[in-house]
Amino acid sequence: MTVLEYGDDIIIIDCGISFPDDEMPGIDVVIPDMTYLESNQDRIKGMLITHGHEDHIGAIPFAMQKFLCPIYGTTFTNALIRHKLDEHHIENVELHDVRPGETVELGSMKVEFIKTSHSIAGAVGLAIMTPIGTVIHTGDFKIDLTPMDGEPININRFAYYGSKGVLALLSDSTNAERTGYTQSEREIGKTFESVFSQAKGRVIVATFASNVYRMQQVADVAIEHGRVVCFQGRSMEQIVGIAQELGYMHIPEEKIVQLDKLKDYRDEQICVMTTGSQGEPMSGLFRMANATHKLNVGAGDTVIISASAIPGNELGVARVINQLYEKGAHVVYDQMADVHVSGHACREELKLMLSITKPKYFIPVHGEARHLRIHAGLGEQMGIRKENIFIPQLGGIIELTSRKGIQSGTVPAGSVMVDGLAGIEDIVLNDRKLLSKDGVVLVIITMDGETGRLCAPVEIMSRGFIYMKEAEELIEESVKLVKEEAGRFEEADKSEYTEIKNAIKSRLKSYLYAKTHRHPMIVPFTIEI
Amino acid sequence: MTVLEYGDDIIIIDCGISFPDDEMPGIDVVIPDMTYLESNQDRIKGMLITHGHEDHIGAIPFAMQKFLCPIYGTTFTNALIRHKLDEHHIENVELHDVRPGETVELGSMKVEFIKTSHSIAGAVGLAIMTPIGTVIHTGDFKIDLTPMDGEPININRFAYYGSKGVLALLSDSTNAERTGYTQSEREIGKTFESVFSQAKGRVIVATFASNVYRMQQVADVAIEHGRVVCFQGRSMEQIVGIAQELGYMHIPEEKIVQLDKLKDYRDEQICVMTTGSQGEPMSGLFRMANATHKLNVGAGDTVIISASAIPGNELGVARVINQLYEKGAHVVYDQMADVHVSGHACREELKLMLSITKPKYFIPVHGEARHLRIHAGLGEQMGIRKENIFIPQLGGIIELTSRKGIQSGTVPAGSVMVDGLAGIEDIVLNDRKLLSKDGVVLVIITMDGETGRLCAPVEIMSRGFIYMKEAEELIEESVKLVKEEAGRFEEADKSEYTEIKNAIKSRLKSYLYAKTHRHPMIVPFTIEI
Repeated sequence: MTVLEYGDDIIIIDCGISFPDDEMPGIDVVIPDMTYLESNQDRIKGMLITHGHEDHIGAIPFAMQKFLCPIYGTTFTNALIRHKLDEHHIENVELHDVRPGETVELGSMKVEFIKTSHSIAGAVGLAIMTPIGTVIHTGDFKIDLTPMDGEPININRFAYYGSKGVLALLSDSTNAERTGYTQSEREIGKTFESVFSQAKGRVIVATFASNVYRMQQVADVAIEHGRVVCFQGRSMEQIVGIAQELGYMHIPEEKIVQLDKLKDYRDEQICVMTTGSQGEPMSGLFRMANATHKLNVGAGDTVIISASAIPGNELGVARVINQLYEKGAHVVYDQMADVHVSGHACREELKLMLSITKPKYFIPVHGEARHLRIHAGLGEQMGIRKENIFIPQLGGIIELTSRKGIQSGTVPAGSVMVDGLAGIEDIVLNDRKLLSKDGVVLVIITMDGETGRLCAPVEIMSRGFIYMKEAEELIEESVKLVKEEAGRFEEADKSEYTEIKNAIKSRLKSYLYAKTHRHPMIVPFTIEI
Repeated sequence: MTVLEYGDDIIIIDCGISFPDDEMPGIDVVIPDMTYLESNQDRIKGMLITHGHEDHIGAIPFAMQKFLCPIYGTTFTNALIRHKLDEHHIENVELHDVRPGETVELGSMKVEFIKTSHSIAGAVGLAIMTPIGTVIHTGDFKIDLTPMDGEPININRFAYYGSKGVLALLSDSTNAERTGYTQSEREIGKTFESVFSQAKGRVIVATFASNVYRMQQVADVAIEHGRVVCFQGRSMEQIVGIAQELGYMHIPEEKIVQLDKLKDYRDEQICVMTTGSQGEPMSGLFRMANATHKLNVGAGDTVIISASAIPGNELGVARVINQLYEKGAHVVYDQMADVHVSGHACREELKLMLSITKPKYFIPVHGEARHLRIHAGLGEQMGIRKENIFIPQLGGIIELTSRKGIQSGTVPAGSVMVDGLAGIEDIVLNDRKLLSKDGVVLVIITMDGETGRLCAPVEIMSRGFIYMKEAEELIEESVKLVKEEAGRFEEADKSEYTEIKNAIKSRLKSYLYAKTHRHPMIVPFTIEI
């Protein structure tokens, strides 16, 4: 999420989520901290969305629960947003469909939407005309001159602004590590062509549900080879429905077959497209590989995984591939053949964008710290002065005038981890991490509230620490040790109870570590009768 | 771990560990289930070790606590094993140093050690002569004809056995997905040369502690450029000590400098080698990137990560690279330059090995399911009959005679997950996963043991579920709800207590889910006074 301000006017660009990593057990999604926007909502003129990927639209429902503002996106992007808002039962959001080439006015600023190429339909870049100059935001992009929709990225429009003079360029850094050019989507058609012409049984293709170009391409090849197509996975079925309806995909309806009708076709007449290219548990491909899907994948089937693993998903993808091999399927994936191209610009394309827009200020966006810095280095190589390049920080303010740019302070910002209906505190997350390592041991001490004398046996139970049925001796010894310490309650003043509880915790901790070399969380609890 | 039997004689080949993945919280290492060997220990003639990586020697201390048998390895491999046994305080293990070319007799079998190339010194393959023919086990290998130690893999010896006739080949499948040849270790010298000649400040190189060739290569280039070398990370310091002593590394002692002496040198005179190429928490590089190491890495420093991420470590490595960039260091890693070569043979090398050994039976080993199957496919392409190719299963028996081979049953086998001093049960591991997702809620109900009447307030506490200070209402409502159900204890027979406890659990579960959309583990506990 990026916020652009001029005077009193605020424009928001994109509003995405990220997914939890291995350090965030139990978290569903991570959204931006929107405190600043909440307390300045009367100044917000609108939200501009560059494309419909989750990391650009996923947090819109959370935002719209805090403040309402008009949203501007292309037809396909808005259809995905509408679907998302419906799922969250959020109404009254103003969604404006804008075609590439159109301009909208937002307070003191005007914005032109510029057609780009990316791994989803309806992607645009933005030319934001402010009173002190034009700001270009590329969104996620690549330079695909032979895209599946026949409309290449509108380089001329970026060049037009470049010739007129661009104040600042915000450009996609995701692939800044990669040399050369990203291949055109069309290039991998050859691989599909070759796999389909050799396949004797069913062909199952896993890809991203939002990649309508990829799905169209696979469908074209499949139909050419006398196959019908069947879509599996809730998100894929939904997106195909939307894309067909809006004219972003063109598969003859009679060639799309539901799962229960596949039995009317021979194996060599079937192509299945499914979610699960990232090995996600419960996705179509995952269930097929684990024999919990009606499509029982096995010998004779060819599976194409038309994606590369997003960082963090490598093990999951490898597991699915192993399982498919174990079931006897033939698997084609990115280590073996050209079955995927990236949706992001590589270094030569990034240089081209810098070259045609000729910005005074350059702000690399999208990507991790290393990508931003490498992209900044490219900017320097292209002749942008070092002091005019700004690496954005979460919540950092970059203040630009026509003469000078500075990084000037911050607003409240950061990641909000959402679990279920609410955000989560660090202390809770930390406890989860501890619990997952060596489990928890509960100690319950029941005593007379007046005398402090124990009045029931000390009880110890555990979860995730040790198999208690086989640890009787350990538990007995622990009880003995707790009793010894707890005996002190009888002579103690109430003010000393905490100290005694800590002593119990610490003795038990040492004892259990000595016996098991494990460090469970120890929770002592006293009940006073 | 592979077990070879002829008649009553058992030979063990390698005895490694694997590391826990994201599905094994709190687990230290994973070792093979050795039940079968324990109950047949009188038949074991010896253990042959192909090289000193953890996945080949890591479980030896665990094995030697169950049964003692002589171990055969090269000098360097044995030095690493000895070190490991010392750490576990295990004595009385017979370690026999064997030089490549030497032969040892083990019952009815004879074994020749054959020099190979790999990413650790002292790697060998095995030619095991049995009464019915020779079995070749390659160990982990690549065909490096210009290795750093000047002694290439002894292809002639493998060819010698191939010409005489090989019964079975067990060959490394790790890189079976990769086309072509693995580069020679020497090839990446050019990259080091170029980075060192451009670096103006300190150069820090992270690599695997066991890769003595890599460390030697880096040290050579560093010294050539007028730098001293300093080793960081416990395992690296230990291995360098052993390798220098045994003559596997040759760095002039005066060029090796301790950390506290680095202040006597200027930045451009310093090269630091460190562990942490996998982004491991607490490793040298991790601490440098997190500013918890005395070496405060920052602007002016060049960091080379001379490794590729092992599957599962990608995120950790990326995090460290991002942190180093954020601190202003220049980072060189495998996406940017040729700073690493694999230690495993690619497809052309695997074909060469199959071609020169000409085995009757082929058993692809080492690697995941997909690697084994792809390697098996290569074997078929090379003319081995499909029925003579066996994909090994964990615990699966492959029975070979000179006429015929069959897969004939299994022995007890599998993974034993070790946490601290002991293995761990599935139920405990499962609890940990549950605990990590949404935490735990404890309910303590204190009642009169005779009447079942509650005699202290119902207590509810949680860990990893919700921040209790902000959830007073939720807790109060939960207490009310539990009290309601617990009221039934008073009229109930003791035999109904479990049913009441389950009812409490299930009502609380529904209530908490409705309010939070979270699913904590609920542990009700009754105390009878």
